[in-house]
Amino acid sequence: MEPWRTGITASDETNIHIYGYDVTSLMRGATFTDTIFLLHQGRLPSKEERALFDAILIGVSDHGPAAPSAAAARIVASGNRKSLEAAVAAGVLAMGDAHGGAAYDCMQLIADGIAIAQRDAISLQETAQRVVAEAKAARRRLPGMGHRVHTEDPRTRVLFEMARAYGVAREGVAFMQAMEMSARDLIRPLPVNIDGALSAILHDLGFLPPVGKLIFIIGRVAGVTAQVMEEHRREKPMRVRIPVMYDGPSPREIK
Amino acid sequence: MEPWRTGITASDETNIHIYGYDVTSLMRGATFTDTIFLLHQGRLPSKEERALFDAILIGVSDHGPAAPSAAAARIVASGNRKSLEAAVAAGVLAMGDAHGGAAYDCMQLIADGIAIAQRDAISLQETAQRVVAEAKAARRRLPGMGHRVHTEDPRTRVLFEMARAYGVAREGVAFMQAMEMSARDLIRPLPVNIDGALSAILHDLGFLPPVGKLIFIIGRVAGVTAQVMEEHRREKPMRVRIPVMYDGPSPREIK
Amino acid sequence: MEPWRTGITASDETNIHIYGYDVTSLMRGATFTDTIFLLHQGRLPSKEERALFDAILIGVSDHGPAAPSAAAARIVASGNRKSLEAAVAAGVLAMGDAHGGAAYDCMQLIADGIAIAQRDAISLQETAQRVVAEAKAARRRLPGMGHRVHTEDPRTRVLFEMARAYGVAREGVAFMQAMEMSARDLIRPLPVNIDGALSAILHDLGFLPPVGKLIFIIGRVAGVTAQVMEEHRREKPMRVRIPVMYDGPSPREIK
Amino acid sequence: MEPWRTGITASDETNIHIYGYDVTSLMRGATFTDTIFLLHQGRLPSKEERALFDAILIGVSDHGPAAPSAAAARIVASGNRKSLEAAVAAGVLAMGDAHGGAAYDCMQLIADGIAIAQRDAISLQETAQRVVAEAKAARRRLPGMGHRVHTEDPRTRVLFEMARAYGVAREGVAFMQAMEMSARDLIRPLPVNIDGALSAILHDLGFLPPVGKLIFIIGRVAGVTAQVMEEHRREKPMRVRIPVMYDGPSPREIK
Repeated sequence: MEPWRTGITASDETNIHIYGYDVTSLMRGATFTDTIFLLHQGRLPSKEERALFDAILIGVSDHGPAAPSAAAARIVASGNRKSLEAAVAAGVLAMGDAHGGAAYDCMQLIADGIAIAQRDAISLQETAQRVVAEAKAARRRLPGMGHRVHTEDPRTRVLFEMARAYGVAREGVAFMQAMEMSARDLIRPLPVNIDGALSAILHDLGFLPPVGKLIFIIGRVAGVTAQVMEEHRREKPMRVRIPVMYDGPSPREIK
Repeated sequence: MEPWRTGITASDETNIHIYGYDVTSLMRGATFTDTIFLLHQGRLPSKEERALFDAILIGVSDHGPAAPSAAAARIVASGNRKSLEAAVAAGVLAMGDAHGGAAYDCMQLIADGIAIAQRDAISLQETAQRVVAEAKAARRRLPGMGHRVHTEDPRTRVLFEMARAYGVAREGVAFMQAMEMSARDLIRPLPVNIDGALSAILHDLGFLPPVGKLIFIIGRVAGVTAQVMEEHRREKPMRVRIPVMYDGPSPREIK
Repeated sequence: MEPWRTGITASDETNIHIYGYDVTSLMRGATFTDTIFLLHQGRLPSKEERALFDAILIGVSDHGPAAPSAAAARIVASGNRKSLEAAVAAGVLAMGDAHGGAAYDCMQLIADGIAIAQRDAISLQETAQRVVAEAKAARRRLPGMGHRVHTEDPRTRVLFEMARAYGVAREGVAFMQAMEMSARDLIRPLPVNIDGALSAILHDLGFLPPVGKLIFIIGRVAGVTAQVMEEHRREKPMRVRIPVMYDGPSPREIK
Repeated sequence: MEPWRTGITASDETNIHIYGYDVTSLMRGATFTDTIFLLHQGRLPSKEERALFDAILIGVSDHGPAAPSAAAARIVASGNRKSLEAAVAAGVLAMGDAHGGAAYDCMQLIADGIAIAQRDAISLQETAQRVVAEAKAARRRLPGMGHRVHTEDPRTRVLFEMARAYGVAREGVAFMQAMEMSARDLIRPLPVNIDGALSAILHDLGFLPPVGKLIFIIGRVAGVTAQVMEEHRREKPMRVRIPVMYDGPSPREIK
């Protein structure tokens, strides 16, 4: 078999290097957040970038036992008491397009928008007008915008404040704010939500769209593991009783 | 259906509290590592505890594409280009008893050892002698001790040095060092390996044995996600060609 | 890399042989149930063995949306609309020790019991008395026996009737019936349940204990896939609303 | 919580009905293949339909240890000896778009083609010409057609022969044959492969496109479970040694 090529990690029985850094020097002089950044970008973050990246990972880390990721993990834990990894994996699997996938879509929207602005030499504001108008015409939902309830997610405000204060905000943040203005003009007020905020900042930190989803997974695994432990410590096996209503065919015989 | 009880996270549409802390205050004033600690202990770590916890998470974060977690994730990514979460979940599933499970077993060994010492009012050194003698008689392997090659894992030394320097080392570290001395006396030199070192420190940081495994998962997911991204960016679908040798029955007919 | 050895399947680009049978001859002259049997035993079943094996696979195929396997699959499908395989995999992961694992444990009990009877040259009835007495003394639950409600599972009766009618019942069925008599004498009436019945018959069909669990998985995947399809066709994304009650620490500030 | 609605299975502690049939009557009078068909169509198959459905499930059941599904399952089994379900789930996760996903895409192609023919009142042959011409212009690959090597998959021939002999072949088979003729005219000989053959027949049996993928999963789980068992019985934990070549940054210091 051909060797598998990798540019990430060199390891033998005694030494591990991640993108050229000896893992023991990272253990002594870096944080886990630095290392996640390094693994996904090939470089260590600045102090300001690290602060934003920490805030994003914390912001998605847990949303309680009813989020699909936590609920799936707890139900698996309920039927499978011995395999902790099975429960955590089920939680990861729930992070699809509808749950945790908005970051991927929104980061793609941002990357595409900025590419259009450059290609056509128009402003981000003009680009946003065009993107919103097209989405409106196609009755397509705008990822990263709007809330189920008419209140602002406080995590969004914190992320944008920190991005400005730390000098991290660049084109991604600018484009999402242009999108918010365009939506208000052309559709209705659709404030940037948490997915939109973290997508804008992850773009400005240099991440590619699919990595947006992977970072959601990394952050949320912290919460899913905690939910699984609580299920094991507080609840009995097979404790979940979901009410069911059958509305299928009446009893019949095999002919 | 009965509501699901939780002591971890209170959330509504606009606010999330983790063990009583508003998530936005964690985003502003804590690190992701702090939040992982909080989610699993119900309290924030001290500065010294955080440094050790960071070092442990970094130390297990990646071991290259050939580790079972990374290899399973890459093979799934190779057949499944659209579902990033499927590949990451497969990586999590590879972290069983043989890969990443040593922390659980070793933390249990430490917790049992310390409980025996207290119950029988004997020293940790005496307890370790007894535990090693029993394992030797039963030809049972000691988790967290010994290496495949005759060299020391540099991560072990760094963790123990940091644990002492930061005042985090307590009974867990003392017990594993007593185990090392006892093994040298009764069996042969079996230095504490990385699994043994992180188990000792996680015990001293207040974690329960199963959490040892969950922390391995949290740390390693950082690396597995990076391995999956590299597979997507550098390799073609279905590229893995494993050589196979068939040694089963010869061709035959259905009777 | 060393080639991976296998005695199951020989395949090249144009031909596939399973334990020596050309797959096209199986397609023409065998059933899927025959092929499952072949893959796990290396031989095709007799007509009578196939009838029992079909009955077992059907008997475990579905238990409605509230079983942990189906519930986990549906919750994952609810957050992840694009990856059908993610939902099915989550269903598989829920089949642990508490849900679907009884077959493994009960088949081990049967295999151990029969081995004891042979080793000590005592009857299955005498062995069962000893096993039940030991379980009673150790307050250990007997796998495959007893019901949550005081009624018999009709699937058990059908399996035992078919096993007798088709001449498949041997030592496994005899041992479980001896266990039922011994439990009545020494503990209280604990009728053989569906897990016990299929374990007895799978033993008599020549399967090893861990295969008992794998057969449960094969059968139940038929139902889990149907549950996932129904979730996609009838329900909206993110539709599951699990009620939550927080009972953790009160709001507090980071010090 | 609202009860979960289902039209598939009614169950209480003692009785289970699948689409109106008592599970014990299915155990006595049906096959597992009948039950899979019933779970996904709401009706039992005719004898002829069952023969084709058996042939399809057998045809996809195993392709040896090097297929991504089996390889992923074996690597997980190698690092995780205790959780059989974890290994099987990893195998399921490998069945994505590139491995096992062709049935979904090809069934969609067939359903769309037949819908176009009906809408525009043109023949299937004319429709196929149009579809092939469009795919050629867009340089888009045609799912279910062509082989990696220049030989015919014998499973394709068997499926089409059986479909004709049993009177199951209808519009789906006709459309794929029209596609083959059109490809020969407009591109080059691209014989219908196994994915195309089973897609045509599953369409004619009344299945929806996503179910094509689920049926691949059901069939392949039979093989994946056998591969996992063989890994446990023949191989040691952690036995897989994948050769790795590092081509990333040279060693460097943290600044």
